[in-house]
Amino acid sequence: MVVTKKIGFSTKGNCDLIDITHQVKQEVSGSGIDSGTVTVFVAGSTAGVSTIEFESGLLSDFQDMWERTIPRSIPYQHDRAWGDGNGFSHVRASILGPSLTVPFTNKSLVLGTWQQIVVVDFDNRPRSREIVLQIMGE
Amino acid sequence: MVVTKKIGFSTKGNCDLIDITHQVKQEVSGSGIDSGTVTVFVAGSTAGVSTIEFESGLLSDFQDMWERTIPRSIPYQHDRAWGDGNGFSHVRASILGPSLTVPFTNKSLVLGTWQQIVVVDFDNRPRSREIVLQIMGE
Amino acid sequence: MVVTKKIGFSTKGNCDLIDITHQVKQEVSGSGIDSGTVTVFVAGSTAGVSTIEFESGLLSDFQDMWERTIPRSIPYQHDRAWGDGNGFSHVRASILGPSLTVPFTNKSLVLGTWQQIVVVDFDNRPRSREIVLQIMGE
Repeated sequence: MVVTKKIGFSTKGNCDLIDITHQVKQEVSGSGIDSGTVTVFVAGSTAGVSTIEFESGLLSDFQDMWERTIPRSIPYQHDRAWGDGNGFSHVRASILGPSLTVPFTNKSLVLGTWQQIVVVDFDNRPRSREIVLQIMGE
Repeated sequence: MVVTKKIGFSTKGNCDLIDITHQVKQEVSGSGIDSGTVTVFVAGSTAGVSTIEFESGLLSDFQDMWERTIPRSIPYQHDRAWGDGNGFSHVRASILGPSLTVPFTNKSLVLGTWQQIVVVDFDNRPRSREIVLQIMGE
Repeated sequence: MVVTKKIGFSTKGNCDLIDITHQVKQEVSGSGIDSGTVTVFVAGSTAGVSTIEFESGLLSDFQDMWERTIPRSIPYQHDRAWGDGNGFSHVRASILGPSLTVPFTNKSLVLGTWQQIVVVDFDNRPRSREIVLQIMGE
């Protein structure tokens, strides 16, 4: 059995983290599927999906890490060719990945207590995003 | 068809790598499902899942890479707020990701010969961990 | 319903990026499954899978990022023990991950317009690679 749901929202870009745990839980529990997996997927090449303890200090630490390892202000060939100024956004997104698959049983996600599902928008400007949830199981 | 299994173990924390390939193979081959995917998921925000050639030199190289790119001893806002001292653990875990999905056919995982499934415990202390295997297919 | 397909090709190694989007789309649309997920998996411990805007500037930026963060020419314990010279390849592959799961509906992948599925071959020599596509759904 397969149920497809979508979640839409606006972001501030610039490594904005959006906690979508509540919406994912609701869609899974209302899907009519008891046990299976939900694949959380972001279409687009400047955003990614992961989990994190959604706490302001840690969000800041996570953003600092990206700036240290894949800095915004070094030269990118992408920017020379296209002038978008978001070469760093693309590279970060490819590392983090656009997809996360989370198991659930008895309609409930198997997340840890302090583990939230987040979309990270790496683009260099505010964006509208649409997340696809593919809920599969029995 | 969906079969849920759990694997529990203790870790030393501090970037301890646990090879769970054998247990995953056993649970898949005993699941009654011939062909499908197994999603390996770690609940918690300071551990991750990936694959590696499980060889002592490489385990050391992998640990050194984390220390170079996301060092333990730089300041983290998470540690100022909560005093856990494991800000680095959270950031590392969010990059690696908590989930891995591996196909199998004829009850056998499609892994490479030198490719083992590992849980990486980034926390700064020994932990008990429970891994969920969501086995789906027909 | 589960359909297994394989895609084979040669790579140049050394962070070669192979765009497999077209083949994945074809296998999904010809699978007889309308809605579900495709898990793209590379067997082997020196390659990974992700998505990227497949544009030459960005491919170069992506390769530069790996050289900055996980350099080829620093000492690796793996190389001292085995003499393969590809310690960096293994470490990079473990971070990127061997697996990607993409939803599809109406036989069509939910990718963004500029989002291609790529295999990244981190090995230090040309390789033959075989990718498994596990297509599941209804």
